[in-house]
Amino acid sequence: MKTRNSAVDVWMVGSIGIDDVQTRTANRKNLLGGSLPFATAAASFFARVGAVGVVGSDFPCSFERRWGAFGIDLQGVQRQAGATFRWACRYDDNMIERTTLKTELGVFADFKPVLPEAYKKAPFVLLGNIQPDLQLHVLNQSVGAKFVALDTMNLWIDIAKPSLLKVLKRVDLLALNDGEARQLTGRWNLRDCASALLKLGPSYVIIKKGEHGALLFSKKGLFIVPAYPVERLKDPTGAGDSYAGALMGYLANAGKVDEKTLREALIYASVLASFGVEGFSLESLEHLTQADIRVRSSELKRIISVK
Amino acid sequence: MKTRNSAVDVWMVGSIGIDDVQTRTANRKNLLGGSLPFATAAASFFARVGAVGVVGSDFPCSFERRWGAFGIDLQGVQRQAGATFRWACRYDDNMIERTTLKTELGVFADFKPVLPEAYKKAPFVLLGNIQPDLQLHVLNQSVGAKFVALDTMNLWIDIAKPSLLKVLKRVDLLALNDGEARQLTGRWNLRDCASALLKLGPSYVIIKKGEHGALLFSKKGLFIVPAYPVERLKDPTGAGDSYAGALMGYLANAGKVDEKTLREALIYASVLASFGVEGFSLESLEHLTQADIRVRSSELKRIISVK
Repeated sequence: MKTRNSAVDVWMVGSIGIDDVQTRTANRKNLLGGSLPFATAAASFFARVGAVGVVGSDFPCSFERRWGAFGIDLQGVQRQAGATFRWACRYDDNMIERTTLKTELGVFADFKPVLPEAYKKAPFVLLGNIQPDLQLHVLNQSVGAKFVALDTMNLWIDIAKPSLLKVLKRVDLLALNDGEARQLTGRWNLRDCASALLKLGPSYVIIKKGEHGALLFSKKGLFIVPAYPVERLKDPTGAGDSYAGALMGYLANAGKVDEKTLREALIYASVLASFGVEGFSLESLEHLTQADIRVRSSELKRIISVK
Repeated sequence: MKTRNSAVDVWMVGSIGIDDVQTRTANRKNLLGGSLPFATAAASFFARVGAVGVVGSDFPCSFERRWGAFGIDLQGVQRQAGATFRWACRYDDNMIERTTLKTELGVFADFKPVLPEAYKKAPFVLLGNIQPDLQLHVLNQSVGAKFVALDTMNLWIDIAKPSLLKVLKRVDLLALNDGEARQLTGRWNLRDCASALLKLGPSYVIIKKGEHGALLFSKKGLFIVPAYPVERLKDPTGAGDSYAGALMGYLANAGKVDEKTLREALIYASVLASFGVEGFSLESLEHLTQADIRVRSSELKRIISVK
């Protein structure tokens, strides 16, 4: 797909899908979805981002245009003969629990990520939620990776734990939700989970708790940040991906990772995720401005400030 | 019961019980429980506290001694012929959900709270979780109440909503958990719940989310504070009561209520609740020092600070 001439600061690998999403008040079909569009779109507000993924021959050009309009480099997105990954879900009335109605892997089943030359020296990497062997396969193509984050899901903990543990040794930051942290470690208390996870390789562990926020653990300490309390929740799909994407975009722009920068990054991650869920697919991120981000990040800082 | 010679800063009304508590690793019987001991004990670290409640003739002197050792004025605690309120529960392995095994009201069924003369001018009041008509009955005996907080539970929303709405008109701060906020307002989004609750009388609404922390809503803004992440959770019973008690004790000591003082108060409330759940009954609060509180409140402030 589309090529940018400048090098990227951060590249991300993940799924690209065509989604159907049902909520109590809406039934939307054929939406651009998957972890990669959400993560890269959120990151694009902070840094130059490259995308690594695969779509089928049925992937609409309009999707490519809308996605590319974020200024994302799409040369790492392969177009292959066959069907694009398709996924459908229905949210419960509380918009938290969801039922997956359809998962058709299509070309995603045989995905072998190839890292474009222009990405190889990029220092920041987000290994989005794909099979852990593939995460390792694409990471091995990098020559410049300095800070690698990994997002995972319960499926890989279930069926590919040895591979997941192997790639974790190469990872600086692990992001996962509370249920996954408990599943991966066999512990309940999130502090205990984090201690166990920090022994598997990462220097930083972020445990995401959805609408309750996230916890950042490192050897140096703990940071807890609530989710920005959204008033007009439309579609929670991709919130975790926008979160991880914004986080890595912010760090890539800062060009460094220390406790203070990470804490700031988590604020922006929460803000981008909150905007993301106010629309279906990338719809609300498409209309987002830097001013919107500034206003809401200031608001979130006031919301959590004791003073 | 015991009389102090000095006036109190804050008085609190609530239940006093003898509890049996089962957890995965322990089975403890005949513990001092009920909302009032937890709330007053937590408050006692900050202010001079008076207690209003009732016990039966079977209430052990040792309980009275241990409770009074916090320096709490117990002259508002009536001793009546009959059995003390008894309650038993079993916690699930996750220590969040619990099953109530026994509720025997005893003398609590005919409780008519009487406010001692020495409490009548106290400016701060916590109407703990008892039947709303009784909350109003005891509040009407006060002549000096300037800042009244109310804690409630799902039972009263179910069976005494008109009375609850009546007393809410007299209340400055309402504390309740997320489920109760949704039940009372019929809304799901917590911001919507808070808007509705603020129209019922209180200037401040605190929505408690247990291990996920609490949200403070007022016309002036929103403050979100996580729970202090406890490592050695032994017994969650009374956490919400310690929380409310510490909050009111802190405010009573400050002698004023503004946004900044309230935010500080929520930090200390979270800290006291976190200590409380590290032991059964009042056991861990009994060993608590001002230094412990200082250390943990500083730690919690660091945990939530972006800088």
